[in-house]
Amino acid sequence: KLNEYLDNLNISEVEGLIDELPEYADTFISTLSINRAVNVFRILDFPTQERIVKKLSGPKLAELINELPPDDRTSFFSELHGDAVKKMIILLPPADRKEALSLLGYPEESVGRLMTPDYITVKEHWSVGRVLEHIRKYGKNSETIDVLYVIDSNGILLDDIRIREILLVKPDVLIRDLMDSRLISLKANDPQEDAINVFRMNNRVALPVTDDQQIMLGIVTVDDILWVANEEYTEDMQRIGGTEALDEPYMDMSIINLVRKRAGWLVLLFLGQLFTASVMGHFEAQLAGALILAIFIPLIMSSGGNSGSQASTLIIQAMALGEVSLGDWWRVMKREILSGLLLGIILGVLGYLRLYVQHVAFGDLGEHWNLIALVVGLSLLGIVTWGSLMGSMLPFILRRFGADPATSSTPFVATLVDVTGLIIYFSVATYILNGTLF
Amino acid sequence: KLNEYLDNLNISEVEGLIDELPEYADTFISTLSINRAVNVFRILDFPTQERIVKKLSGPKLAELINELPPDDRTSFFSELHGDAVKKMIILLPPADRKEALSLLGYPEESVGRLMTPDYITVKEHWSVGRVLEHIRKYGKNSETIDVLYVIDSNGILLDDIRIREILLVKPDVLIRDLMDSRLISLKANDPQEDAINVFRMNNRVALPVTDDQQIMLGIVTVDDILWVANEEYTEDMQRIGGTEALDEPYMDMSIINLVRKRAGWLVLLFLGQLFTASVMGHFEAQLAGALILAIFIPLIMSSGGNSGSQASTLIIQAMALGEVSLGDWWRVMKREILSGLLLGIILGVLGYLRLYVQHVAFGDLGEHWNLIALVVGLSLLGIVTWGSLMGSMLPFILRRFGADPATSSTPFVATLVDVTGLIIYFSVATYILNGTLF
Ligand SMILES: [Mg+2]
Ligand SMILES: [Mg+2]
Ligand SMILES: [Mg+2]
Ligand SMILES: [Mg+2]
Ligand SMILES: [Mg+2]
Ligand SMILES: [Mg+2]
Ligand SMILES: [Mg+2]
Ligand SMILES: [Mg+2]
Ligand SMILES: [Mg+2]
Ligand SMILES: [Mg+2]
Ligand SMILES: [Mg+2]
Ligand SMILES: [Mg+2]
Ligand SMILES: [Mg+2]
Repeated sequence: KLNEYLDNLNISEVEGLIDELPEYADTFISTLSINRAVNVFRILDFPTQERIVKKLSGPKLAELINELPPDDRTSFFSELHGDAVKKMIILLPPADRKEALSLLGYPEESVGRLMTPDYITVKEHWSVGRVLEHIRKYGKNSETIDVLYVIDSNGILLDDIRIREILLVKPDVLIRDLMDSRLISLKANDPQEDAINVFRMNNRVALPVTDDQQIMLGIVTVDDILWVANEEYTEDMQRIGGTEALDEPYMDMSIINLVRKRAGWLVLLFLGQLFTASVMGHFEAQLAGALILAIFIPLIMSSGGNSGSQASTLIIQAMALGEVSLGDWWRVMKREILSGLLLGIILGVLGYLRLYVQHVAFGDLGEHWNLIALVVGLSLLGIVTWGSLMGSMLPFILRRFGADPATSSTPFVATLVDVTGLIIYFSVATYILNGTLF
Repeated sequence: KLNEYLDNLNISEVEGLIDELPEYADTFISTLSINRAVNVFRILDFPTQERIVKKLSGPKLAELINELPPDDRTSFFSELHGDAVKKMIILLPPADRKEALSLLGYPEESVGRLMTPDYITVKEHWSVGRVLEHIRKYGKNSETIDVLYVIDSNGILLDDIRIREILLVKPDVLIRDLMDSRLISLKANDPQEDAINVFRMNNRVALPVTDDQQIMLGIVTVDDILWVANEEYTEDMQRIGGTEALDEPYMDMSIINLVRKRAGWLVLLFLGQLFTASVMGHFEAQLAGALILAIFIPLIMSSGGNSGSQASTLIIQAMALGEVSLGDWWRVMKREILSGLLLGIILGVLGYLRLYVQHVAFGDLGEHWNLIALVVGLSLLGIVTWGSLMGSMLPFILRRFGADPATSSTPFVATLVDVTGLIIYFSVATYILNGTLF
């Protein structure tokens, strides 16, 4: 019964069912045909995978691990502790064991970790007929047969040919005649993030991976790239919001882990913000002399933070898509100073008007209302420009030193701009109001 | 010469070249074989496409528009003004004209806009041999032959079959025997955003699109989905940073347009922040009585904004990935109140300690230092909790009313929390300090 019910569901529907009824996850996996069980297992998040593996019977587990495609095996193994990996690896036959270990040997977040060594290679002098025969024999174990790879006798990758080109010609055509000698390949040590744009710009379902000597090592398929794109999105989004990357679905996380991931940055930002109290304390005399200045502090500071957030997210996004690279910093700086000035003028004028209106309507700003309005307007101009500049340069600086540009989260930029913004504000105030209000 | 040089470049390399030498874009496109020209044209951003089209000769333009795959044609046309579209559409033969108009008829950002009507259909009673013959004849015009679609005599979609299943069996096997009656399809009016997750969870290179009667209309391919995922990432990122979606690469935008996209939100947030000045004005007496309160305002407000940013980006991200849906609001609220309280306790204690240290080190906080420290500590607790709650609920509210949850940008959340946070701070202060400092 359960068997029949599960058989009518799509892979993604079974995944949804496991989300709803986590306690039956291992039953569902055991009931499915091994082929479908593997396809469901691949798309589960790691905590669920781990729970299932712990509850599966020995033979079922061995079967599952054995049938898992090599790239999904790598990704599952790399999340397990060392001991658990050892236990799993002995379930594999010797050849697969070696393969799994070599895939795990590539650096984290490298293209090598996404590779599957199951693909079809052909030789230049083969005919299309022979290729089709070859596919019928060996295609079963290949991750994809949408693309075939032409290699020479040393294993050097010469070209890739899409299956459609094979199917559209007569069986006696030679592979050599279908080659265009244009080849796009990835290097095993390249970062996964870069592979997204290579796929996007070249419209491929699979790309070959080679070592530095152009020897073919494996392939990466676009379905895995869609997952990588998704992880990068999640990571960037969480960093931008000022959280450590969760590495787990939000809903599946325990409160305590959630707090742990958030507390670090929150405390760090709090410590950074302590400087605002120091700056304010330093200008206490000015505050006492013109309490009105205190009233506009939140307004002015947050405007700087906002323009900084805009600038930093724009640059982080453009960097992620490869539109902006490190060498562009100078062009970006010029753009941001100019945009910052224009935006600063807009807000500066609005700020001045706000005080003018208050003066006309309530007359409670005293005789020097126009000086105060000038302080507010000029400070806004300065702080908004400064915010744009800082927000846009911070991702460059972080990237220059090998960090993720997305670490320049909007709260981080805001904190930096808050502290420096207060200094700008009080400096402008001191300069303009000296001799009148204090 | 140019011809030969271009011929050795990959599609993405030609795109890079056009980025470097924009003034020669039309020359490059004209020089490439039409097949490759089309593949380059597809991946260019719209402003570049528009510039090229304006400079191409009549016959070249007609050829380009004619060879462009229908989905890419739709996406190009939908960015042009009405008049320009008309001029382009008359370049097409009548059948393509009708097709183009019908594709443009689907709502913006719907799956229909991504569809291509070029795919291969087969019938249940066909043999694999006949299918291969059919592909050889009609496959040239198909967008992909990685998947074949089984339809009945009314055009109703029955199943999809991957080409590998065809290639791995003997030519006399019938299609009927390869069908598994499990079918994943998209609806033409579904949002593109949802299609990303369907592709991701089902590991497909192409998915069929039907109308509400299950009649097959076209297919969507994974390469286009990778672009959609990218656009969604960009849009969310820019909204989160408090900018309107740019709809153009950052570097290609004129400063004036950049400022226009940023000024709207910046001014709106500024107007929102004006309330902070009103709140501060309202509590001016308290400020005058205890100037020390002013000094901690930036610290306290930004802590609320930060916890709000964390909560809102976590929820926006989880919604985008389909991990959290509208109905989960209550579970999320409970989680966020709890996390907010825990984070609030951490920052509250740190805040209290900060004042305690100042008291011990400088003794400049007066006899009521412990009351002031208590105000700061309790306010932090309240504001951090409140920030988490607001930040997490705002995406739900926006989505409930049909808006993009990502519009609850971090600056927007921060502004809301700033205004309410000040009220919390001064209320706590009034309650605790009444009778002592004012
Ligand atoms: Mg799930
Ligand atoms: Mg994987
Ligand atoms: Mg090639
Ligand atoms: Mg894979
Ligand atoms: Mg990463
Ligand atoms: Mg990243
Ligand atoms: Mg470009
Ligand atoms: Mg497109
Ligand atoms: Mg099927
Ligand atoms: Mg397409
Ligand atoms: Mg969208
Ligand atoms: Mg969106
Ligand atoms: Mg702020």
